[in-house]
Amino acid sequence: MTPHPLSGLSPDEINVARDVVVASHPDTIVYFREIYLSEPPKAQLREFLALEHSGRLSPTTPRPYRLALCQYDVIGREKSTEYHESVVDIRLRRRVKHRIVDKKFHAALVVDEFDVFVNRCKASPLFQQALADFDLPKGFDVVIEPWPYGGLDLSDDNCRYMQGLIFAQDKTKNNEDANFYSYPLPVIPVMDCATEEIVRVDRPATGGKGDGLCDQTFSRDIIGHANASDYVPELLPGGTRKDLKPLNVVQPDGPSFRVTNESLVEWQKWRFRVGFNPREGATIHDVWYDGRSVLYRLAVSEMTVPYADPRPPYHRKQAFDFGDGGGGNTANNLSIGCDCLGVIKYFDALLTETDGSATKLPNAICLHEQDNGIGWKHSNWRTGRAVVTRSRELVVQFIITLANYEYIFAYKFDQSGAITVEARATGILNVVNIDSCKTSEFGNVVSGGVLAQNHQHIFCVRIDPAIDGHDNSVVVEESHPVPMNEATNPNGNFYRVIDYTVDRAGWLDAAPDLNRVVKMTNPHQSNPVSGKPVAYKFTPLATQKLLADPNSVQARRAQFAQHHVWVTKYRDGELYAGGNYTLQSQVEIGGISDAVKRGDRVADTDVVVWSSFGLTHNPRVEDWPVMPVDIYQLNIRPSDFFTANPSLDVPSSRNASSRVVQSDCCRDAHI
Amino acid sequence: MTPHPLSGLSPDEINVARDVVVASHPDTIVYFREIYLSEPPKAQLREFLALEHSGRLSPTTPRPYRLALCQYDVIGREKSTEYHESVVDIRLRRRVKHRIVDKKFHAALVVDEFDVFVNRCKASPLFQQALADFDLPKGFDVVIEPWPYGGLDLSDDNCRYMQGLIFAQDKTKNNEDANFYSYPLPVIPVMDCATEEIVRVDRPATGGKGDGLCDQTFSRDIIGHANASDYVPELLPGGTRKDLKPLNVVQPDGPSFRVTNESLVEWQKWRFRVGFNPREGATIHDVWYDGRSVLYRLAVSEMTVPYADPRPPYHRKQAFDFGDGGGGNTANNLSIGCDCLGVIKYFDALLTETDGSATKLPNAICLHEQDNGIGWKHSNWRTGRAVVTRSRELVVQFIITLANYEYIFAYKFDQSGAITVEARATGILNVVNIDSCKTSEFGNVVSGGVLAQNHQHIFCVRIDPAIDGHDNSVVVEESHPVPMNEATNPNGNFYRVIDYTVDRAGWLDAAPDLNRVVKMTNPHQSNPVSGKPVAYKFTPLATQKLLADPNSVQARRAQFAQHHVWVTKYRDGELYAGGNYTLQSQVEIGGISDAVKRGDRVADTDVVVWSSFGLTHNPRVEDWPVMPVDIYQLNIRPSDFFTANPSLDVPSSRNASSRVVQSDCCRDAHI
Repeated sequence: MTPHPLSGLSPDEINVARDVVVASHPDTIVYFREIYLSEPPKAQLREFLALEHSGRLSPTTPRPYRLALCQYDVIGREKSTEYHESVVDIRLRRRVKHRIVDKKFHAALVVDEFDVFVNRCKASPLFQQALADFDLPKGFDVVIEPWPYGGLDLSDDNCRYMQGLIFAQDKTKNNEDANFYSYPLPVIPVMDCATEEIVRVDRPATGGKGDGLCDQTFSRDIIGHANASDYVPELLPGGTRKDLKPLNVVQPDGPSFRVTNESLVEWQKWRFRVGFNPREGATIHDVWYDGRSVLYRLAVSEMTVPYADPRPPYHRKQAFDFGDGGGGNTANNLSIGCDCLGVIKYFDALLTETDGSATKLPNAICLHEQDNGIGWKHSNWRTGRAVVTRSRELVVQFIITLANYEYIFAYKFDQSGAITVEARATGILNVVNIDSCKTSEFGNVVSGGVLAQNHQHIFCVRIDPAIDGHDNSVVVEESHPVPMNEATNPNGNFYRVIDYTVDRAGWLDAAPDLNRVVKMTNPHQSNPVSGKPVAYKFTPLATQKLLADPNSVQARRAQFAQHHVWVTKYRDGELYAGGNYTLQSQVEIGGISDAVKRGDRVADTDVVVWSSFGLTHNPRVEDWPVMPVDIYQLNIRPSDFFTANPSLDVPSSRNASSRVVQSDCCRDAHI
Repeated sequence: MTPHPLSGLSPDEINVARDVVVASHPDTIVYFREIYLSEPPKAQLREFLALEHSGRLSPTTPRPYRLALCQYDVIGREKSTEYHESVVDIRLRRRVKHRIVDKKFHAALVVDEFDVFVNRCKASPLFQQALADFDLPKGFDVVIEPWPYGGLDLSDDNCRYMQGLIFAQDKTKNNEDANFYSYPLPVIPVMDCATEEIVRVDRPATGGKGDGLCDQTFSRDIIGHANASDYVPELLPGGTRKDLKPLNVVQPDGPSFRVTNESLVEWQKWRFRVGFNPREGATIHDVWYDGRSVLYRLAVSEMTVPYADPRPPYHRKQAFDFGDGGGGNTANNLSIGCDCLGVIKYFDALLTETDGSATKLPNAICLHEQDNGIGWKHSNWRTGRAVVTRSRELVVQFIITLANYEYIFAYKFDQSGAITVEARATGILNVVNIDSCKTSEFGNVVSGGVLAQNHQHIFCVRIDPAIDGHDNSVVVEESHPVPMNEATNPNGNFYRVIDYTVDRAGWLDAAPDLNRVVKMTNPHQSNPVSGKPVAYKFTPLATQKLLADPNSVQARRAQFAQHHVWVTKYRDGELYAGGNYTLQSQVEIGGISDAVKRGDRVADTDVVVWSSFGLTHNPRVEDWPVMPVDIYQLNIRPSDFFTANPSLDVPSSRNASSRVVQSDCCRDAHI
């Protein structure tokens, strides 16, 4: 059976792509980074999907070619390395596109590079010399945490570097999961990735309030004032709490969803496909509700985490988790029971080994239903009759781990026709050493000797709407006060709702004072009840934008984080808010800031909307050693798309399993 | 057993209060509105609670007096009515306070008045004449919906009025719950409550776009273009959906909470009391976590719903749901299974009949646990070990119905020491008649002939903190950009976190551009890890403030809705953001705007913080006929209050009831 054009490559397809690439580069070593589906050009895919939705697909229907995007280094004589990207047509077994990526760009990291870095550090006299400045407690060992090098300073050469954050681990616990983050060491080895040599060991300051910017006040007894901060249950001094009774989600008749053809999900009038790639993790495609098109594609496009400690080299701490590391590459193998409750469908994914073979990432995405409280309710006070429904959601979830931090991403579909993109930040704060008894204006002391630096997390969600078709407009709606006046506002209670269509590609910001709402509309389809164009809308999240100085490298390379909403005209392959190549970037190239510079007309055409939001994270002690989730939700809701509340027909039956506690304390009884 | 000072009055206590009041007003009719616990003065209660928490209570410990607040009309000769408030000491059976409320104030509505109004409308020739202008379809009958009269115009006398919104109901369906709101009639009868006469029938305009402000363009066939919009399942044309399979929450070992002594709740280191009164509904008192005080009192203080249609008399549509109607008076009897899942504890409440007797409102508040997804997670990529916990919440919920609308309020406590106040808006839009084929800049046509007017819902939550004691300060924290400069920000990545203590009572607004955070701190207690004062914090919700012209009656009477955060010094009895008497108010008297005018010093003292937020609701067609919940959450989180993540010891055991769907479609298997 021919795979669906949106289905990920099979292991066989990946093998074909690998073989074609290897054959194209004789007498060299090919070091594979990624091989994954190159999604079909939209024009082709639209045609195919139109036939699919109209039921006119047949085995002989022409299909978009199966294309593999292959990203790899070609290592020639004297280890000279070039980064290449090829597209291979699987059926033809032929390379149909090929380019050597300009040296100013760097490929995203792969896990294999971390191992090299760790080994080179261990073997480096420079690094060992630096460590010799410290006396670690007996039984402690050094842990090397590889990190992207951050944005290149303007004075830097353009080598590919890797840096490491260094910690100590108490080996006397005989537990590999003893939390080493509570013992940070103020040394940062830097490796030249081409030569694999440790070229430098930076010595960050450990001073605190009152010191100069770069004072290095650490002593030999560098973690003498640090404490164990464990989170694995067997190392908790008091163990885990005993008074939490089970709360089970049981679905005796199974789930309400159906998954067919690998990736097609149908649930409560929704129909969409789930994709996965190493860059974005889970992606959502071809979203329809009750036979009507809503979105062409939805994904978390990028995120950046800039740190605000000005003491060099901490300005280099800025991760682009999707561009540098990959939301798919770093996705967790989700296991049952705790990552989700209820009946769960897992999707596996394929990742690429450096030899170009496919390796399975089991349970990379999970799909399940959950209850989100009351969906709608009305009580008629005359009759005493209450009608109340629960809100059921369908959740597509994946979780990524980037060294210390984790992010939980979920696409949630509900019965009222709304889609919520949720990001939960959790995991372990990125921390550095601080001298005993000091505090710092650059962060918060969350444990002895441990400074959690102030930072931001800014996400960008890419929404490719297809509201009843592909030609859409973006309409901004605002609610404006109107001064009291005899003609239009005699009693002062009136406010005016205005709207305007975005004509040219550009950006806009959240404006809660105006209740600014962004509508993605189809100007050719009117709601038969209200007469207004059918639309989906969202309120841009009024969260703080990137704080770094606009001329800083941190800001120049993360322009997507400087406005809340971006509107661009669709272009094939234009998927990444921060550009294709974020690793060591000095400036955002090929991201949304460049896309809007084209000045495209965006009204009544194939338009794309990008929503940036996030959190300024000045750490609390409560975020240590593992941070309770901080939750951000982007709600995308129908707005005059339907002719009534789509969840009106949700049954309001009582839930058979609920029970009542009759009175004080512990007696309870079945109803 | 002596009741706890925070326990609501018993029926016997209410009887005592009633008898004392009746005896105090011989030869008159006493028309009771409310009798409920007058919470003890804070000085007394603090003393009692201190003894209670230190385990030094004994049967002989002096307790705050049990006091009943009695609100009632005294109807003398010729039906002259005065509104009185008395406080009765239950033990002494003596009135200890009494006052006749100034005529410029009006008592809140009680349900009994609605019946009077409906009957007087039916009997009114004026009203019947107005209706005679219309031809209703055969089998339709008129429904009268009593409404508060809104703010008095400056030109109004100060009579107590009631107005009605009028609808037609299709009686041929033989279903009392057929939705009459889809047939609005443009007549608004107004009753003088003193004489119980219908004194006027307003005739609001029904015109649409292009018409003058007050054009009355309705015709005799007034609802000929209106359609049925039913929501009760038996009247849905297609019935309810059949493809939703059960999702049951099962707690085989019962709940993890304990409720003792009527109102004391203990759960996962939390300890607090649940109260209830006719004005605020559920209230939360004396909140402690793990032996440390967090809050003295938490409640939804007020809300206002101003409508923006400028056509008189629609400017009168402005409800104060707590002050006009009462969050407790209008609370639903919550029934099992749909209002909550899992194991539920209900609290009954007592309301007052007009003869002063107590009547039971069963199941006015519910308490249950729920799962809120992942609580925290970390995966060690070196070992592959993931530790993940679920976040369990304890929810105190009540739901109020005000004519067409409902609000679901929840106080949610979690294992990470956070408290969330949640408001969900649902129910039926308040709608008026609009001519066929017209649209309106004053709202949206959501069904034939039905205009849903633009409006706002603005809530105010009152937080009385007791962070490790009663003397607290309010500290505002902001994150400010810093221009790149050699001395303090050489690479431009630094941002400065500043904070300042609020010295004088006043207001401030949400400032997402500065990441403004409000901390309630104890300046005398430092966190031993970070050295910072222990605190709880919240980010004010950046929602649109009241839009009405500041000089309008709508705005003058709802000053609390014009700023996001208010800080006042505690005073006994100062509980209501919009003042004690909101019904027909022209200006906010005795609310927070007056409280801040005192200019009290609020640093390091008994301080109260008020948070206003809400939604500008320009209705969607999807909000009809019953609106999917719109959810607003105020998160109050610890900030250097604890020495680590309080949920660190939550067990991460797998959930026994979870199952996996193995592959496509419907096959599934137990793990």
